[in-house]
Parts: sequence; C-alpha cells; structure tokens
Amino acid sequence: MAKKLVEAITSMDQDFTQWYTDVVLKAELIDYSSVRGCMIIKPYGYAIWELLQKQLDQRFKDTDHENVYMPMFIPESLLEKEKSHVEGFAPEVAWVTHGGSEKLTERLCVRPTSETLFCEYYSNNIQSYRDLPQLLNQWCSVVRWEKTTRPFLRSLEFLWQEGHTAHATAQEAQEETIKMLNVYAEFCENVLAIPMIKGKKTEKEKFAGAEATYTIESLMHDGKALQSGTTHNFGDGFAKAFDIQYTDKDNKLAYVHQTSWGVSTRLIGGIIMVHGDDSGLVLPPAIAPIEVMIIPIMQKKEGVLEKAAEIKAALSTFARTKVDDSDKSPGWKFAEYEMKGVPIRVEIGPKDIEKDQAVIVRRDTREKFIVSLGDLKEQVKMHLDSMQKNLLAKATEHRITHTYTATDMVDFAKIIKETPGFIKAMWCGDQGCEEQIKEDTGATARCVPFEQEPVGDTCICCGKKSDTLVYWGRAY
Amino acid sequence: MAKKLVEAITSMDQDFTQWYTDVVLKAELIDYSSVRGCMIIKPYGYAIWELLQKQLDQRFKDTDHENVYMPMFIPESLLEKEKSHVEGFAPEVAWVTHGGSEKLTERLCVRPTSETLFCEYYSNNIQSYRDLPQLLNQWCSVVRWEKTTRPFLRSLEFLWQEGHTAHATAQEAQEETIKMLNVYAEFCENVLAIPMIKGKKTEKEKFAGAEATYTIESLMHDGKALQSGTTHNFGDGFAKAFDIQYTDKDNKLAYVHQTSWGVSTRLIGGIIMVHGDDSGLVLPPAIAPIEVMIIPIMQKKEGVLEKAAEIKAALSTFARTKVDDSDKSPGWKFAEYEMKGVPIRVEIGPKDIEKDQAVIVRRDTREKFIVSLGDLKEQVKMHLDSMQKNLLAKATEHRITHTYTATDMVDFAKIIKETPGFIKAMWCGDQGCEEQIKEDTGATARCVPFEQEPVGDTCICCGKKSDTLVYWGRAY
Repeated sequence: MAKKLVEAITSMDQDFTQWYTDVVLKAELIDYSSVRGCMIIKPYGYAIWELLQKQLDQRFKDTDHENVYMPMFIPESLLEKEKSHVEGFAPEVAWVTHGGSEKLTERLCVRPTSETLFCEYYSNNIQSYRDLPQLLNQWCSVVRWEKTTRPFLRSLEFLWQEGHTAHATAQEAQEETIKMLNVYAEFCENVLAIPMIKGKKTEKEKFAGAEATYTIESLMHDGKALQSGTTHNFGDGFAKAFDIQYTDKDNKLAYVHQTSWGVSTRLIGGIIMVHGDDSGLVLPPAIAPIEVMIIPIMQKKEGVLEKAAEIKAALSTFARTKVDDSDKSPGWKFAEYEMKGVPIRVEIGPKDIEKDQAVIVRRDTREKFIVSLGDLKEQVKMHLDSMQKNLLAKATEHRITHTYTATDMVDFAKIIKETPGFIKAMWCGDQGCEEQIKEDTGATARCVPFEQEPVGDTCICCGKKSDTLVYWGRAY
Repeated sequence: MAKKLVEAITSMDQDFTQWYTDVVLKAELIDYSSVRGCMIIKPYGYAIWELLQKQLDQRFKDTDHENVYMPMFIPESLLEKEKSHVEGFAPEVAWVTHGGSEKLTERLCVRPTSETLFCEYYSNNIQSYRDLPQLLNQWCSVVRWEKTTRPFLRSLEFLWQEGHTAHATAQEAQEETIKMLNVYAEFCENVLAIPMIKGKKTEKEKFAGAEATYTIESLMHDGKALQSGTTHNFGDGFAKAFDIQYTDKDNKLAYVHQTSWGVSTRLIGGIIMVHGDDSGLVLPPAIAPIEVMIIPIMQKKEGVLEKAAEIKAALSTFARTKVDDSDKSPGWKFAEYEMKGVPIRVEIGPKDIEKDQAVIVRRDTREKFIVSLGDLKEQVKMHLDSMQKNLLAKATEHRITHTYTATDMVDFAKIIKETPGFIKAMWCGDQGCEEQIKEDTGATARCVPFEQEPVGDTCICCGKKSDTLVYWGRAY
C-alpha cells in the first residue's frame, strides 16, 4: 500500500512538470475548481501560507510597516492615470461591467496590483513632510487574466502582499527598495531555506511604471529560475501622475518618491520545486504545518497510544506535533507523511516501549535514529534545527553546481539545452542583444546581480565592450 | 487645541449618524475611496481587525476548523444551482464579463458568499463517511452591490470569515450551527465586550437557501439593533442541489448535511456604536491596537523621555504600549488618544518623576489615578482588566434598561418612537403579522430568543393564541 502510493507520483527526472502537478495534488495543497485558472487552496496548503504570512508579516512590522486594506476594484479612469502602468496591466485585467442587473457607468477592474489605489490614498492623505514616510502593506488576492496557468506559479487569482510606501526624498525611496529586497532574501533563506540571487531587473523586465525593479531569483530542481519577489522604485513618476505633493521643511511643494514590493503564493511553488523529491514534498520545519508526526506501531496493544500521547505532549512545547492514530497501516502513514513533507516522523511501538526508546526518521536525509525516550526531546529539537539548515545548504549547493559561465553564444546555447541552470554571462546593456539571446535560447535576463564578478569584458551577443555581468536562465 | 479637536465631533445625542461618521474618520479607522461604497481600512482600523481576527481564528482552530481559500469568482451556472440561494443573491452581485479584451463565454460573479464554491468542492472531495465531518473556514472579502452604504455597517465590499461544514447527520449539522453561534457570542462578550441575544431568525429573515438561520443580536447606543453574526443550518438542501453524497457505514449512499456561519468587519461598527462616547472611540483592551499610551509632560526636561521609555519597557511585557514623543502639545495628545479610544493613558513629567509617581487616566470612566512608579505595572494591569469587564457591564446594563415589553400595538409603536431599544412581544408565527408590524413601526423581528420568557399569550398583532416570544427592534 505504501509502495503503491509512492509509485503514484511521476519521477522528477522523468517528467518534472508532471511530478509538480502530482505533488500539489497528492500532498493535498490545492484542488482545481470550475473557475478556469483559479485554484482552491486546501487546508494543508493554506496552513503553509499562514505560517509563511505570519513570519513575513512580523518582519514588515519590525521594519515599521502597517497593514491596511484597499478596495478590490479600480475604476477604469483611475487605472489609466499612469500611462506605462495601464499599458502593462490593462491587457490582463478582469472587468466588472454590471452590479446586480444594472450596467455600470464606468467599468471597474478587479485589482491586478494596487499602485493606483494607494496613489489616490496618498494624494488625499499626504500634506506635509510630517506625514512622511508612509509605510503601508496589504495582504489580499489579486487577479491577472493569464492564458496559461499552473498552481501557485501562475494563476488567474493569487494571494500576495503588496507594500506601498511614500518618501520625502529619492534617496529614502531607494533605501526602502533595497531594504525590502533584503528582508525578502533573508526571509527566503532563513524560513523557506531557499538561497536567493539579489539583483536589478533589466529595462525590458522591469515593472510597468517603475524607474527600477529589483528581484530575488532562485533556482529550481530542474534548473529553471523562479522570480521569487520583486521591489520597485517608482521615483516620482506616480506622484506626478497622481499629484502627490507635500510641503517640505522650507515650506515648498515637492513630489513624494514611492516604492512597492510584493511576494505571493508563488513562493509555495518555489518550496515544492527546490526541496521536493520523488517521494513528494519536503518542507522546511519553519513553515511545516506539522513538524513532527508520531506514528504508533501496533497501536491496539496496551500502552502504545498512551505513550504516543505522552510524547506528543512533550514535543508540542516546541514543535507542531500530531499523532496519527487512524486505522490505516503504519506503512500507509509513512508514505502519506513523506508525501506531505513532514520533517520528522517518530515511530513508537510495544518493542520500543519495552526498550525505552523511539525511532526518529528525517524526511530530508531519510536517516533513521533509535533514540532513548529520555533524549527524544533534545534529539527532535536538534534534528529539526539541522534539517532547516541542511535544506538551505543542499539548495545552495544545487544552485552553485548548476550555475555556469558562458563567454560565447555557442557555449550559452549548449548549456541551456544540456545542463539547465543559471548562466553568468556579460551583456552590453542593449535591449536588442537581450531579445536576441531570448529568441535564440529561450533564456531571459534574470537579473544584474549586486555582486558583480565579471566573467569577461565583451557582450556575449554582439561582442561590444561590456562590464555588466548578468544571470540568465529559462524561467517559470 | 485639545478642546477644539473634541468639539469637532458631533454629539451622539444630537445626531448619532453624524457622530458615527465623525468617529470613523477622526479616529482614522477608514477613508473613503473613489470606488462607490468601498472603504479604505486605514492602519488603525485594520489593526483592530487583525486583533479581532487573531482571537476569533484561534477559537475556530480550537474547535477543529481549518482554513482554506476558494476562488473569488463564481461562474453564473454554479451560482444558479440552488434555487432560493441564487434568488437571494443574484440581484446584488457584481458581474465580470471581460477578461482583458476578451468577452467571457460565461459571466463570473464576484463572490457575495461562497456556499456554491464549497458545495462544488465537497461534491468532489467527499466519498465516504470517513471524509466527514468537513470543518472549513475562509477569511476573505466579499462583494454585495448595496444601494446605500455606510462604513463597516453596510459596504459594497467587506472583509469577513465564512465557515462551511459538511456532516454525516442532520443532528451533527444542527449541533455545529449552535456551537458556532455560541463561539461567536462568547467571543463578542469576552473580547469585544458586547453582550448578545442569541436566537433563531424568522422564516422571513433567514438566509437564502437555509433551513434555519441563527443570530446574535446586540443593541447599539442609539437603541437600534445590530445583527452581529449568523449561523445557518442548510439541512441537505444544498447537498441535493450539488449532489454531495457519501457512502455510510452500511455502504449506502446518503446526502451530507451542511452549515455555514460568518461575521464581518461589521463587528467594528458594533464596537464603535456600543462603547463610543462624545470624545470618540472607546476600545476594549482586548482589541485595542494601543492599550497604553504614555505621554511625556515637558518632555525636553532631562530624564523625562528616559523615564517614559523605562515605563514603556515595563508595560510592554503584558500590554501593547507606545510613547508619543512627537512635538505636539500634551493637550493635543490627550484629545487625540481619547478620540482613538486608547484604554489607558499614562502621564509622566518632571514633577511626577520627583515624586516617584505617574498619572493614569482611564478612557472608559475618565478616572484619574496618581500611582507610585513601583505600583504602576500592577495598577495598569488591574485597570485594563477592570476596563474590559466594565465595558461589558455597561453595555449589558444599557441593553437591559433599553429592553421593553409590549403587549399591544399602541404601546409597541410608542416605545419604538419614543424610547428606541429591543421590544419583547409575543407573535403568532404568521408572516403577515410580521410584515404588518414592520410596516406600522419600522421594527423587524430580530430573533426568537433561545431564552423564552413569555410576556403574554396572544400575538401582539392579530391577537391569536401565541407562545412565541420575539425580540423586535429597528436595525442597522
């Protein structure tokens, strides 16, 4: 039975796309709905989101941001106020045209992102330098009318947070943009155990309406990149379009400088594709809804369930712990919680009780340890901690071994085709070259990394002088 | 300055509606937006919602419910599956007709409530009695195309939670319906300090598609009732419309029995109208974003800000505490935090420091206490606790003194007109009488209370024999 369940997943190396779909469904993260491209986030998937949200929200509060809630609708005329913004988003919004049986005089779009609403708010609420900075965030769902969708990675509706800030000076806005990118990267590394490359997007890849977009990029198991979070510096572009002015200390009118930044349920897709294996999901303890699953063996024997409950009480003081005492077989349970990525399994049966011990099995390394009951608490604590670190180390190693250097287009194309991963290559900054590379190889400029370590001095595409290193890759 | 700020609010007795609007704006709970009927929940208002949400969500988890997220769109054909449900909601939904530039083949409504989505999910996910009960909840925003709107009380879009459960038997569904009503009532009393009348809605007032609707009703300062939360028992009506069947222990197919239940940001409207006064908001400590505001007096004098910081550190161990060291005057600050309903203000100045004391001022009673610094922690703790209890006691007393008994229609009409409040009166159960009473007096049947204490034996409207006591009132 256990075997059968495991066999039901496609192997990663055989068909990564199918493996991903198998995992999201069999680990009970999502379900499809009759609404095209919209997913139902099931209890187990939503519990991961809640843990992620709680820890990220704490970081926002620690950096003095406050949460608000803006309307989900944006009147068409408001969306149109900033030219490049509307051009970027209008093709992919859902339009509300009727309320009840009445036709609306002006169409409303369901927010694809809320810059325009925050701008309107700021223009009404900022008068003086005393009102700055404004450091706001909201947790909500947004809608983008995508043609092809995949659970977590690209869906018509998704959950996210969007931070929107307004500052007195260009410098402060730039500092905020970089600060929040660092908050994201630290969170992804320490909580999700996913290492990030931090950098700047090219002009072609930047957000509609931004002066500059920064990104954290991670590498999935299959060698494709995932844009995991972005922060945008708007300069005073939106402020001019929405007339957001304040009186400065010298009593002069000045435009504010703004930023926005967001991460979404897409991060869950990243967790799956970075840590998962052929037995299913592997969750970093920090966001595992169940950190320890206790499985009683021969649970009808006297004392087994009592001992399991005792262990649960002891472990619950520091870890999210459950006992599965359902009438399913231990083998079925082993496979089930491996599929769900539960970090640690504790097995306890009559023989273990006799020997005053329990068995610990780690999900990441599949190592098995026999531990005396007196040491169990310390051992579980140690393994949870070690697993959190090990996942980050493994993911970092995977990224390092799948990051290549190319100095000519032949090499570049060969790497993309044969050994997918990040490619470090020089670029002259010309959009023509960027587009040519994409056309020839399918790879896009993921970012101009903050850590610039040139691998040559000429553009890989046109051969002109270049001192800019870019991370390239095929991306989700 | 302090005086001026206070004068800026309309007095409650002069114009309660205007007072309410003044409070929601001046306490910075909301802002209007250019989207008709939609509100912007500002940081202070949203912080109240977060505290409320956290404590209510814990109660859901403690009663074994799990959170999920369903799509925000409902295809028209899905909404139409349960006849009375669609009749109730179709007139007030927002319709999405276009995605990008494409016209949709089927209109999607923005969820006004999610019964139909949960039913579809249950019909795909429930096979056997082993899959029951299903105890799910979601936190989200919903849209109802209301003609007249008021912040928190009735808005086009609002935040809420909706629980949706499926059970093997009618009895279990009924038990869940009552259990969650009790969870709501306990939460409102202990956290929001608002006492509730628990009872059943009449047929006329029940939810579209429900077999029975239960409600918690509270009384506002102006004598009007506020429906504060409802729970619905659907029987197997939705199960039949959506074909949600399971194989029972005897291997026979049976329909599930379902419930749903919700409370919303409307509760914040209740907090305002139950506890507020002519100086603004009054918040129960349990949901106050700032429980203690420390106001330094003559803060430029040596040692004052240091002492304020010291007190903040001491009080922060058990209460949400802030220091306002802005350059505004103490008088301005007193008025500002009274307006915002901060439960306790601590004043500390050079003279206080000299005498090793601080001044405590309670928002509810406006009592002022001089407390030695050594006792401050204990005293603040005691006053917060006492204020939480006092608010509930005051609100309960207000409800008791504004609950009347009527045995004929003349009395009934006189009470409604002259001394608004709840009216207890007998009713025969006939919908004609219910409608007549509404037409004549504007009062609706708030609920048939669980605690039946007859005040007569004939229907107040038609005079026929009756043993059913009803709470009546004009409502928001």
